[in-house]
Amino acid sequence: MKHGLAESIRDKCAIVGIGTTDFSSRSGRSVLTLATQACLAAIADAELDPEQVDGIVRCDIDQVLHNDLAASLGLTDLRFWSTVGTGGGAPCGMVAQAVAAIQSGQANTVIVFRSLNGRSGVRFGQPMSDSDRVGGRGSYDEFFIPYGVQVPGHMFSMMARRHMADFGTTEEQLGHIALTCRRRANANPAAQMSLRTMTMDDYMGSRPISRPLRLFDYCLETDGACAVIVTSAERARDLPKPPALIRAVAQGTVADEQPGYFLSSLLRESLTTWPSDPVAKTLYARAGCGPGDIDVAQIYDCFTITALIQLEDYGFCAKGEGGPFAASGALDMSGSLPINTSGGHLSEGYIHGLTHIVEGVRQIRGTSTSQVRDAATCLVTSGVPNASSAMILRTDS
Amino acid sequence: MKHGLAESIRDKCAIVGIGTTDFSSRSGRSVLTLATQACLAAIADAELDPEQVDGIVRCDIDQVLHNDLAASLGLTDLRFWSTVGTGGGAPCGMVAQAVAAIQSGQANTVIVFRSLNGRSGVRFGQPMSDSDRVGGRGSYDEFFIPYGVQVPGHMFSMMARRHMADFGTTEEQLGHIALTCRRRANANPAAQMSLRTMTMDDYMGSRPISRPLRLFDYCLETDGACAVIVTSAERARDLPKPPALIRAVAQGTVADEQPGYFLSSLLRESLTTWPSDPVAKTLYARAGCGPGDIDVAQIYDCFTITALIQLEDYGFCAKGEGGPFAASGALDMSGSLPINTSGGHLSEGYIHGLTHIVEGVRQIRGTSTSQVRDAATCLVTSGVPNASSAMILRTDS
Repeated sequence: MKHGLAESIRDKCAIVGIGTTDFSSRSGRSVLTLATQACLAAIADAELDPEQVDGIVRCDIDQVLHNDLAASLGLTDLRFWSTVGTGGGAPCGMVAQAVAAIQSGQANTVIVFRSLNGRSGVRFGQPMSDSDRVGGRGSYDEFFIPYGVQVPGHMFSMMARRHMADFGTTEEQLGHIALTCRRRANANPAAQMSLRTMTMDDYMGSRPISRPLRLFDYCLETDGACAVIVTSAERARDLPKPPALIRAVAQGTVADEQPGYFLSSLLRESLTTWPSDPVAKTLYARAGCGPGDIDVAQIYDCFTITALIQLEDYGFCAKGEGGPFAASGALDMSGSLPINTSGGHLSEGYIHGLTHIVEGVRQIRGTSTSQVRDAATCLVTSGVPNASSAMILRTDS
Repeated sequence: MKHGLAESIRDKCAIVGIGTTDFSSRSGRSVLTLATQACLAAIADAELDPEQVDGIVRCDIDQVLHNDLAASLGLTDLRFWSTVGTGGGAPCGMVAQAVAAIQSGQANTVIVFRSLNGRSGVRFGQPMSDSDRVGGRGSYDEFFIPYGVQVPGHMFSMMARRHMADFGTTEEQLGHIALTCRRRANANPAAQMSLRTMTMDDYMGSRPISRPLRLFDYCLETDGACAVIVTSAERARDLPKPPALIRAVAQGTVADEQPGYFLSSLLRESLTTWPSDPVAKTLYARAGCGPGDIDVAQIYDCFTITALIQLEDYGFCAKGEGGPFAASGALDMSGSLPINTSGGHLSEGYIHGLTHIVEGVRQIRGTSTSQVRDAATCLVTSGVPNASSAMILRTDS
């Protein structure tokens, strides 16, 4: 073992199976059923059997527990399980743990999943005072709720306002991110917004929810589940589908991390300095490449501002330049960095970062409904302001 | 990477620091303060600085979150965090994830901790209907509570009764495990029961709680915290204290795992077939050794029956022979397998499996208050009936 070497993770594992349920506003199924369906789809996609799965990684605020899922899938030899937070910052970190399990010989075939009834069940846009239902515990809500800060939109709107004040970012610039995602969703029959087009007038005319954020700055609320299967690169090459090699993966927080679960990110010194900055540095060092090497990106977009700040942190433009960059056309299919090619959380569906991993694999396989020609590398990010993770997928060539 | 090779984990990492708080029935401190104190003690024991810690692994039902602890310790570069369940089955699995993080190059110095106010705060012996407070979510309590099955003692008492019915195990045989732990606690000034001796008459005369289990079959209720520091074996050799090499570590479940969090272990076909059986097989295969190579063991003992069944599953005696084995004197300091040398959960304190890891390291360092002469290997188990983990520590020689 070469401990601590940045490149020790490089290309050692791959994603070999992807699965999703339908995305809807009322699934009519339990989160366990959704998780089971997505996992079985991913296992089938990898042309494996459930008995071959020996590891499960879940998100901290998923309501499905390891042993529920193991029983439901009929796993007979589960020998690695782990949970990763925080919420939307977790997904690439969940893949990181699958990689760690495989690299250390603790598991061979690991499922990473996320399942939620985000519209018909627990809605993130509802006040979080019942912190257990959205996964918080020991949250510092009492410092925020008296001031009316109760939901993610409240926090991200203040971050957007700060970005506007510091860097001159405009509402239209945020709108370009919403429009980009919508156009990709329009090409994706599985997207919740597949049939609904959006113009800048539609965007600017949409109702304000938490100023400066309006309806179309918000992600969707979705019932559904996604799963991916991770195994070693060596084994991946023996499976029928082309592997999406995990070039690198990283988790990270900011140095002035504050206690508490979520809203406490507002207590930090800067509202526009996010853990995506240190995560990007770790990720590129592990990958041995930089933003100029990325062909396509799936950028976590719980809100438009979330994606905009990450475009800066992952080095596609300078800090503060996310607005002009988004408005420049760079994010379109013909631009330098097509993003969120299945529609993103803003327009495909909100499965809390997992959709982005699934779509990243599609780009590497060449099977996206908005395929970037000859895409050899895809950046996937899982970003919330208190903890983030990201990875780079690549073709095996 | 040699994926899937049983020995790929072998001796690659080590525990280099251990820390505990005092163990009491009323700490007067928050779980975060307790966790911070134990972690700082472990960091100091390793002669490291908090800034060097870049990973945290917590137990799923710990109330302290990663970012709370990171902020409290002043960590500046947290780049790996993970959560492991289920409860008391987690601790060695938590070390397994630290090992995975280190072996895959994702972190260099990982804290594994557990903190609880188990007497003055959340008491495990209280009915678990408020499942959040003990960490459950999506629990199947509704199938048990109507029948009066509400707490761990109810479940373990049925397992003990089944063991008695199937194998002729006696109450006195269980008593030998309680007495063994008490004697070790009497030698350990830090143990909650340090000053209280126990005879078999005391044991047999103690009040029944959930028959056949009586007061002294139950572990203590403890306020306190423990932490250990894991790093690579290579780096461990550069640190001042002798490393406790992690020979092997494993997690596992049973094949007929049932959905649900805890009490649902009662739904399985056999109440005396536990995941410690498959975990033992995996562990010994990874370690390249067997029960005959173990010099001393720290066996998870939330109840006497818990330890007894594991003695069988880890191969120290045949299935069903745990009772006579416990009564044979084998577990004493002069026996073939001294166990729970700091007093165990039955008599030192109940920090949910972490005390056993800390004591395992002491045995390898030669610093236990009940030191096994020339101990070169120590088995540590974390065992509950629905998910288990275990590891083998060894001297670096």
